[in-house]
Amino acid sequence: MKIEQYRIDQHNEGLLGKHNNQFIFLKEQLGEQGIDANAIVKTLQAFQVAIPSWALGTGGTRFGRFSGAGEPGSLEEKIEDVGILHALNRSSGSISLHIPWDIPKDADAIIQLASSLDLKFDAVNSNTFQDQKNQELSYKYGSLSHVDPKVRKQAVDHNIEVIKYGKELGSKALSIWLSDGSCFPGQSNFVKSFQNTLESLQEIYAALPEDWKVFVEYKAYEPNFYSTVIQDWGSSLLFCQKLGPKADVLVDLGHHLPNANIEQIVATLMMEGRLAGFHFNDSKYGDDDLTVGSIRPYMLFLIFVELVEGMKRAGKGSDGFAWMIDASHNVKDPLEDLLQSVEAILLSYAQALILDSKKLEIARGENDVVLAQQLLQNAFRTDVRPLVREAMLHSGGSLDPIGLFRDLKVRNGLIAERGLVTVATGL
Amino acid sequence: MKIEQYRIDQHNEGLLGKHNNQFIFLKEQLGEQGIDANAIVKTLQAFQVAIPSWALGTGGTRFGRFSGAGEPGSLEEKIEDVGILHALNRSSGSISLHIPWDIPKDADAIIQLASSLDLKFDAVNSNTFQDQKNQELSYKYGSLSHVDPKVRKQAVDHNIEVIKYGKELGSKALSIWLSDGSCFPGQSNFVKSFQNTLESLQEIYAALPEDWKVFVEYKAYEPNFYSTVIQDWGSSLLFCQKLGPKADVLVDLGHHLPNANIEQIVATLMMEGRLAGFHFNDSKYGDDDLTVGSIRPYMLFLIFVELVEGMKRAGKGSDGFAWMIDASHNVKDPLEDLLQSVEAILLSYAQALILDSKKLEIARGENDVVLAQQLLQNAFRTDVRPLVREAMLHSGGSLDPIGLFRDLKVRNGLIAERGLVTVATGL
Amino acid sequence: MKIEQYRIDQHNEGLLGKHNNQFIFLKEQLGEQGIDANAIVKTLQAFQVAIPSWALGTGGTRFGRFSGAGEPGSLEEKIEDVGILHALNRSSGSISLHIPWDIPKDADAIIQLASSLDLKFDAVNSNTFQDQKNQELSYKYGSLSHVDPKVRKQAVDHNIEVIKYGKELGSKALSIWLSDGSCFPGQSNFVKSFQNTLESLQEIYAALPEDWKVFVEYKAYEPNFYSTVIQDWGSSLLFCQKLGPKADVLVDLGHHLPNANIEQIVATLMMEGRLAGFHFNDSKYGDDDLTVGSIRPYMLFLIFVELVEGMKRAGKGSDGFAWMIDASHNVKDPLEDLLQSVEAILLSYAQALILDSKKLEIARGENDVVLAQQLLQNAFRTDVRPLVREAMLHSGGSLDPIGLFRDLKVRNGLIAERGLVTVATGL
Amino acid sequence: MKIEQYRIDQHNEGLLGKHNNQFIFLKEQLGEQGIDANAIVKTLQAFQVAIPSWALGTGGTRFGRFSGAGEPGSLEEKIEDVGILHALNRSSGSISLHIPWDIPKDADAIIQLASSLDLKFDAVNSNTFQDQKNQELSYKYGSLSHVDPKVRKQAVDHNIEVIKYGKELGSKALSIWLSDGSCFPGQSNFVKSFQNTLESLQEIYAALPEDWKVFVEYKAYEPNFYSTVIQDWGSSLLFCQKLGPKADVLVDLGHHLPNANIEQIVATLMMEGRLAGFHFNDSKYGDDDLTVGSIRPYMLFLIFVELVEGMKRAGKGSDGFAWMIDASHNVKDPLEDLLQSVEAILLSYAQALILDSKKLEIARGENDVVLAQQLLQNAFRTDVRPLVREAMLHSGGSLDPIGLFRDLKVRNGLIAERGLVTVATGL
Repeated sequence: MKIEQYRIDQHNEGLLGKHNNQFIFLKEQLGEQGIDANAIVKTLQAFQVAIPSWALGTGGTRFGRFSGAGEPGSLEEKIEDVGILHALNRSSGSISLHIPWDIPKDADAIIQLASSLDLKFDAVNSNTFQDQKNQELSYKYGSLSHVDPKVRKQAVDHNIEVIKYGKELGSKALSIWLSDGSCFPGQSNFVKSFQNTLESLQEIYAALPEDWKVFVEYKAYEPNFYSTVIQDWGSSLLFCQKLGPKADVLVDLGHHLPNANIEQIVATLMMEGRLAGFHFNDSKYGDDDLTVGSIRPYMLFLIFVELVEGMKRAGKGSDGFAWMIDASHNVKDPLEDLLQSVEAILLSYAQALILDSKKLEIARGENDVVLAQQLLQNAFRTDVRPLVREAMLHSGGSLDPIGLFRDLKVRNGLIAERGLVTVATGL
Repeated sequence: MKIEQYRIDQHNEGLLGKHNNQFIFLKEQLGEQGIDANAIVKTLQAFQVAIPSWALGTGGTRFGRFSGAGEPGSLEEKIEDVGILHALNRSSGSISLHIPWDIPKDADAIIQLASSLDLKFDAVNSNTFQDQKNQELSYKYGSLSHVDPKVRKQAVDHNIEVIKYGKELGSKALSIWLSDGSCFPGQSNFVKSFQNTLESLQEIYAALPEDWKVFVEYKAYEPNFYSTVIQDWGSSLLFCQKLGPKADVLVDLGHHLPNANIEQIVATLMMEGRLAGFHFNDSKYGDDDLTVGSIRPYMLFLIFVELVEGMKRAGKGSDGFAWMIDASHNVKDPLEDLLQSVEAILLSYAQALILDSKKLEIARGENDVVLAQQLLQNAFRTDVRPLVREAMLHSGGSLDPIGLFRDLKVRNGLIAERGLVTVATGL
Repeated sequence: MKIEQYRIDQHNEGLLGKHNNQFIFLKEQLGEQGIDANAIVKTLQAFQVAIPSWALGTGGTRFGRFSGAGEPGSLEEKIEDVGILHALNRSSGSISLHIPWDIPKDADAIIQLASSLDLKFDAVNSNTFQDQKNQELSYKYGSLSHVDPKVRKQAVDHNIEVIKYGKELGSKALSIWLSDGSCFPGQSNFVKSFQNTLESLQEIYAALPEDWKVFVEYKAYEPNFYSTVIQDWGSSLLFCQKLGPKADVLVDLGHHLPNANIEQIVATLMMEGRLAGFHFNDSKYGDDDLTVGSIRPYMLFLIFVELVEGMKRAGKGSDGFAWMIDASHNVKDPLEDLLQSVEAILLSYAQALILDSKKLEIARGENDVVLAQQLLQNAFRTDVRPLVREAMLHSGGSLDPIGLFRDLKVRNGLIAERGLVTVATGL
Repeated sequence: MKIEQYRIDQHNEGLLGKHNNQFIFLKEQLGEQGIDANAIVKTLQAFQVAIPSWALGTGGTRFGRFSGAGEPGSLEEKIEDVGILHALNRSSGSISLHIPWDIPKDADAIIQLASSLDLKFDAVNSNTFQDQKNQELSYKYGSLSHVDPKVRKQAVDHNIEVIKYGKELGSKALSIWLSDGSCFPGQSNFVKSFQNTLESLQEIYAALPEDWKVFVEYKAYEPNFYSTVIQDWGSSLLFCQKLGPKADVLVDLGHHLPNANIEQIVATLMMEGRLAGFHFNDSKYGDDDLTVGSIRPYMLFLIFVELVEGMKRAGKGSDGFAWMIDASHNVKDPLEDLLQSVEAILLSYAQALILDSKKLEIARGENDVVLAQQLLQNAFRTDVRPLVREAMLHSGGSLDPIGLFRDLKVRNGLIAERGLVTVATGL
């Protein structure tokens, strides 16, 4: 199933009057503050968030999964799903594959399909946190950190194989997330685990193509865990420092201890030139993998304030980083949920872009804390939805992606094509 | 020092054109959604947040206090300060006194002063968490829960005296916050502490005038503590159930364990008809007493969604509850900080008021989680500042309270009157 | 497979000399403090912890399950497993069934099998947090709290059916844990959810046999959640108050927000006569379901201090409460893990029993915090393992359950009987 | 006041019989496990924990301080107090001074006094988190990170002056803890704050004597804060890497986010050769500064397991690190509290020393998680108090420091000398 452009245009037509009214009003308001709305719209258009191949089906918890319907049953169908999203919002122009769930059997055909939907391939992801059928050695007690060098070798080889698949598709980065760690005090030797992991990563690093990066993700904890090998940004950075310039730290919003100041972590990693990018989601209690912006939208905004400042300082655009959604869709239609997440990301980005950073720097220099807060809140309280809509409109997307998705009864169409009881591979 | 009305009107004149433009635009937008902006403005006008007498000076931490200047040195000056706030925002029309920091020596004169500034007296607060000079017995090991009945009696008597002062001023409630608890496992017998506290509260309850309420506040922890006698809403409610219908639970936003779902607690207490009101503030790590809305504005909005629903269900207006700011102003001018807090509260209230609760109930009934989230976020993402400004304008306040406060150099005026090195009584 | 008594006796013989030496030494030490070791041994012998039928297989997380071998494939085999545990430690004399995972087809035969292993049937557990094959309506959006009365009815009927199974086996309580709640702000109406749940519980309550109890469990959060219907002990207690005297609150150690003072909750619930019992486990970050005592043994001890005091106050023995292990065994042999958990529980109980509570009460009365801590720590620092071993020995169990389990190669025996790739029904 | 040796010997005599009985029994038990109790006793004797000069008076919270009596009013009296502790436990042989609270006016006399009590001077601590009387510029908005270079210079100069005082007394390290940070989002520029702090630290580093170290402490948060400049071990390590080999990371147990795995942080820092040492205390909710071991003794043990392993790996003894107590004594006699803390530290160390690390490494190599836990718990559950007592006895200390402190009515003696209403300088 594919959403044809005329459908989008038709739908937009009905909304255009209202949108123009709102956009013009906002443009004037921003203009009075010396902000060029059109420039911001362009910056927003350039922002692309990768959709992970595992996020297109209904997720579950340890108790079970309440599956949805019409879910993609193959890599091709997953690409098709991302194509639908991208057609609607023109901001989801890449897909991040997870191996071995989504091994491309015919890379050329896959690339062609993706191209036809205007999609690229983002970082490829390895999986050594589950045992696959017919896998020789188990990852029950770890993978890259395992006490047994044979298991480590198997995990290293898997990662190298993932790079191979990525190369075929035009990816430029390998993203590594480990669930290695321990469930109980005493179970593992922290130092040996670190050093085993380092050696394994060094072997993978050596296999990286010239123009590739490896992203080292950290996570404070997993349910049923006592420790993780890469528990925080400090550990991740230590690995990257020892690996070399191709290794950067990947931040997942849900992978922190309660109350962590994530925006400061972002600022520090950008200062060190070591931020790879983001896995976006939101959470209330732990790593809840909820829709981006659904719980702590102000924190997301504060993170984007740091990102915008950091990009400026580094002279980089948003294409210099890897942005991806990493959420679990358990009670919403995964495609609608992803549309909500992308919208929330763009809104936060837009808010950060309209922040008057010059005045903010002056207020900071004078320790005028009241004014600094006012400036931030002025940006956050502004209704920037017209900016995001305008960006989507300019790029050929929909003014109301979810509305159109529902109007077109896309899910029904997918069910008709794929059936009611498909289950997407992945989590 | 007093802000004369013509100053406010003059200042508003310069801002009126812009404001009207924004308000009319928003009114139209809301009108299209079937929402009557003028009705909401009226509802906002009726909302009054009490200012506690201890919040008008610069606060400190256990390491020290970096005092400000021109702070109020007497109860009269504190009332004057609240008068300034109320003149500016017309939403801070009451003051909550803390005894013994602010004992009114001449109640009539105090009432007259307050009336002249259009201020009333909100709940009175007792203090048994500090020892006062010449106090006979120490609260080092507790007050209402103390193992020694003589200490309990002293604490009960103090509370009864506080009621007396409150009666003189026209207050209608006693607010009790205890720092009773223990620093170490083993230090206190939980059950005896509970029962001692209950007996003490019963004696205080018996001394309440017919038309008074007692507010029982809970707090999960204090620095250097291991337990508090009233640790959560469940404990508070248990006390209130045993005390009787005049006892209600007071919620302070900062008094919870990490990640607590406070909006659900609010809903439950309102369902039980046991919510006394709120102590507003914000926090990142613990009971940080930061400016309202400065860290988690979306959570504040969600709380107001429950409050609005609960008031509707109970057929009550906002005057049926006790609203107070309970923050510590350490790096901002306390008056500017309070203006920011009141504004944040009104904005959250306005967002909750424009929520389409009928559609929301339908979406909930259909488990349309995507739509439910959209409805909430539509309200939250709307820039409701014109509504709050309109409300202040209608009530005779300023369209830009902090701007006018700064234009008039109010703090300089206070310094001129009071001197540089005054220190407000209180924390 | 069954462990014959002579195996245990034989194994004990080799350890007896060392044990007696240690026990006699400890007995003398305790005697000097006025404590009768033999009385404590008797009290320990009487303590029985139920084993849940779902804990006998290898658990998993949302990412997958690394299954063990020789796991029980039927209810009969599960009972057999508990029989092995009970033979070894004589403290696991009951089993808690989970319906529909473990529906007894022939109740008489099941009872007979259990009796032959000296096992009883503890509380029965319903399951409305998963959809079963061929289930008419889904619990995706809740069960007892669902917006649709037909779903609620299905869930109520299931609970009533569970009671029926329990009656057949001699159970005396129904234990209800709900994963009802919401994933996103706005998704559910807190008050309606509460009231729907209350009505559902009232129907179940009405179906309870005269001499039964219903245990209402609470849980602060689940991964991927934003709210749970019964979020804390206060909510649970509110339900129980509205239900009636047959309803009590069940505490699961892992179901709390970070840093919660659980021992105080226990004390309060016992004071109210509303503690049903415990689900034991341990955790570092969330509801990790780790081996009891593996992370926070001192907290477990403090809880037992409250339990011992509460039982004394209520004039009840340990058989007046429901004790159960509720852990997930992902990287250990489930039977060895359960043996470690039961041992940890007994050790904490023993430490609480040797606490000099009279001296403690005196120290508290004098606010002698140093002494109060010393008394607690004296009990905790004492090596009470000989007491627990003596209790097991007296009851016919093993002096070293895990050692014997390994010596007898029990797991190999089970694999030989059941095969390598069995997977236990349950989580 | 000074405790004469004969008093200690006399008191020990009465306890010796019982102690010898217990020690011999434990020695035998350990001997059977191949552990040489006497060697452990010697290792314990060598362990010395510094007492900070600010811990000898009653501490307070932001609400107030309930002072004790007979507190030291001068540096001389503080040294005297530490002398009392060291006489009793022979494990508190150094004092850590805090400038400007404890400026030594006559260094030679101070050294002589300390020597007479067998005390050395540990790391000196600077204070830029408070304004001192007559201080030119305020630290209200930061010190080493301040936006104003003049304030930074003042703070740098203060640190250099602290080094000067330390040199006079024979200290070998400067310990820096900053409360620099921000209370509100937007208030500070994270990157500039980091870089300002780095420059300031570089100037201080340049002023370090050849054989000195600088300890960089981190802290996740303070009450009323939104961010701290050095928020976690990763930040601290980054500073140390940029500063050079004389800079190491100081870990304070209370300075972490909820649930942090501190033992893993310790292992990582030791692996990197960057652990300076420890500030010991304990906590339930935040940075509670409670008595060491009073809340989470098992965690303290796990930390010592890493310390023992790390020291072995590095070929260092316990004198290669800086150990200090950093607690606040609000409801206990400070000296008794410190005795409890030192005892708890020694007990944890002793437990870690009797751990069978060879067997543990084998169990880890075989992923025998059950055995690994058993080995840890065997060490922890062993009653090692006789080892600590034997160490104190051998070093000339008391078998029961608190008992003797009370028998000798030391506090009364101090009150007689110093009066009832002294207040120690410091917090």
